[in-house]
Amino acid sequence: MSGRTGTLLGVGLGPGDPDLLTVKAVKAIRSAPVVAYFCKKGRRGHARAIADPWIGPESVELPMAYPVTTEIPFDDPAYVAQLSAFYEEAAQTIAAHLDAGRDVALLCEGDPLFYGSYMHMHVRLKDRYPVSVCPGVTGMSGCWTAAGQPMTWGDDVLTVLPGTLPREALVRRLRDADAAVIMKLGSHFPKVRDAVEEAGFGSRAFYVERGTMIGEFVTELRAKIDDSAPYFSMILIPGQGRRP
Amino acid sequence: MSGRTGTLLGVGLGPGDPDLLTVKAVKAIRSAPVVAYFCKKGRRGHARAIADPWIGPESVELPMAYPVTTEIPFDDPAYVAQLSAFYEEAAQTIAAHLDAGRDVALLCEGDPLFYGSYMHMHVRLKDRYPVSVCPGVTGMSGCWTAAGQPMTWGDDVLTVLPGTLPREALVRRLRDADAAVIMKLGSHFPKVRDAVEEAGFGSRAFYVERGTMIGEFVTELRAKIDDSAPYFSMILIPGQGRRP
Ligand SMILES: C[S@@+](CC[C@H](N)C(=O)[O-])C[C@H]1O[C@@H](n2cnc3c(N)ncnc32)[C@H](O)[C@@H]1O
Ligand SMILES: C[S@@+](CC[C@H](N)C(=O)[O-])C[C@H]1O[C@@H](n2cnc3c(N)ncnc32)[C@H](O)[C@@H]1O
Repeated sequence: MSGRTGTLLGVGLGPGDPDLLTVKAVKAIRSAPVVAYFCKKGRRGHARAIADPWIGPESVELPMAYPVTTEIPFDDPAYVAQLSAFYEEAAQTIAAHLDAGRDVALLCEGDPLFYGSYMHMHVRLKDRYPVSVCPGVTGMSGCWTAAGQPMTWGDDVLTVLPGTLPREALVRRLRDADAAVIMKLGSHFPKVRDAVEEAGFGSRAFYVERGTMIGEFVTELRAKIDDSAPYFSMILIPGQGRRP
Repeated sequence: MSGRTGTLLGVGLGPGDPDLLTVKAVKAIRSAPVVAYFCKKGRRGHARAIADPWIGPESVELPMAYPVTTEIPFDDPAYVAQLSAFYEEAAQTIAAHLDAGRDVALLCEGDPLFYGSYMHMHVRLKDRYPVSVCPGVTGMSGCWTAAGQPMTWGDDVLTVLPGTLPREALVRRLRDADAAVIMKLGSHFPKVRDAVEEAGFGSRAFYVERGTMIGEFVTELRAKIDDSAPYFSMILIPGQGRRP
């Protein structure tokens, strides 16, 4: 262990279409000897799948499998403790490569610093190692593109809400929004749909699943009648602001 | 005029660094025979500058110069009328190429459907011609990357505000925000800075100028003591939400 320390590269992958990686992200993946990513146990993971066309055979891959996913609720202290231990361990694994002078490209869906899994490594490693982030196209940009909807005009205020919020909080914040995005739907979808209706946006809302990915699906929210929403899904309420 | 109609391509350029174009955007610019962009009279324009390394000598360039910029206030009916006539004319110019079967790549800073100039052409042409949008990295992603700040965690609500709003509206909405971005500063900067202080976020706010571009400048908001802010500038208030 001598010489130069490696750099942690937070690489934004964009919303899903592999051609929506930036030129900078492609260069980072190709130049880093180690390509790391989070995944579920026994799965290849979303990030690895998006980056697939850009990962060369010479890359050392470092999959880091989450110990838990949705089995325990987010606000359960057991979940937080387990996840926190997992992130510590992941940071140490990455640090070992950095100490050995190897750059590590950590893949992250969308933009790394926007609700991104990369942030958990960033805060743990940034004071000890050089870090460099490649911003990415966010999932929401991919989704409003899939829906063909201009999202914000002129003086419109955009509110981005996690679907994990309580129903009342969603309704209150939506009532005050010009344009809105609601992410992290999953099992929260029925609650969120009700909140959108209660706030009076039912007729203006779109539901987008797997925006820019294979299996992309876009519909007016009111035309979606079942209650299930996958991990990659969100609701969009486009703004109607001033436009010449 | 016969055969296939051209496609209008709305091409997101990202925040400024030419390597932050997506692979898809580069392909679109290289494949379209006509490359169009908005600019100020007598200037090459921001969009054209960002895309410069990717535009080949065989492209036909279509600069479209705004008749007015900041000389008339936004809410003046004369401004709206002049701008509206300009957009109609621009749409007709683009339509002539599309009628002749030529694809037109319309360059747009950041993401085209997020406060983007492209939207004015999109709404005017989408019902008459095929359109296709390449989403881009937003200016705000470029800015929080430049600042090295994770922006939103867990249940954080992100509020995106145009600095053109009245001071009271800014204060009220900031008070209710977990994380916030304030765009479109320019001459509104002193008002916005005051609003950030009044809402109690002064110590957590960053000011970013020309994020990811040559001349990038990042500072804590309180360390910025002059009153001038260029077109490419914004204020960021990172969230502090739940994190394991
Ligand atoms: C933990 S956040 C990660 C956000 C990511 N860093 C970004 O910039 O978009 C995960 C949420 O992003 C949203 N999302 C991301 N990409 C998406 C896509 N292509 N289609 C639909 N939703 C998507 C979903 O709401 C999902 O629950
Ligand atoms: C008309 S909006 C266009 C937004 C663009 N479509 C996007 O996705 O970022 C222009 C505003 O974007 C912000 N902006 C865009 N790129 C920026 C950059 N690189 N640095 C600082 N501000 C930027 C500024 O606040 C500017 O006033």
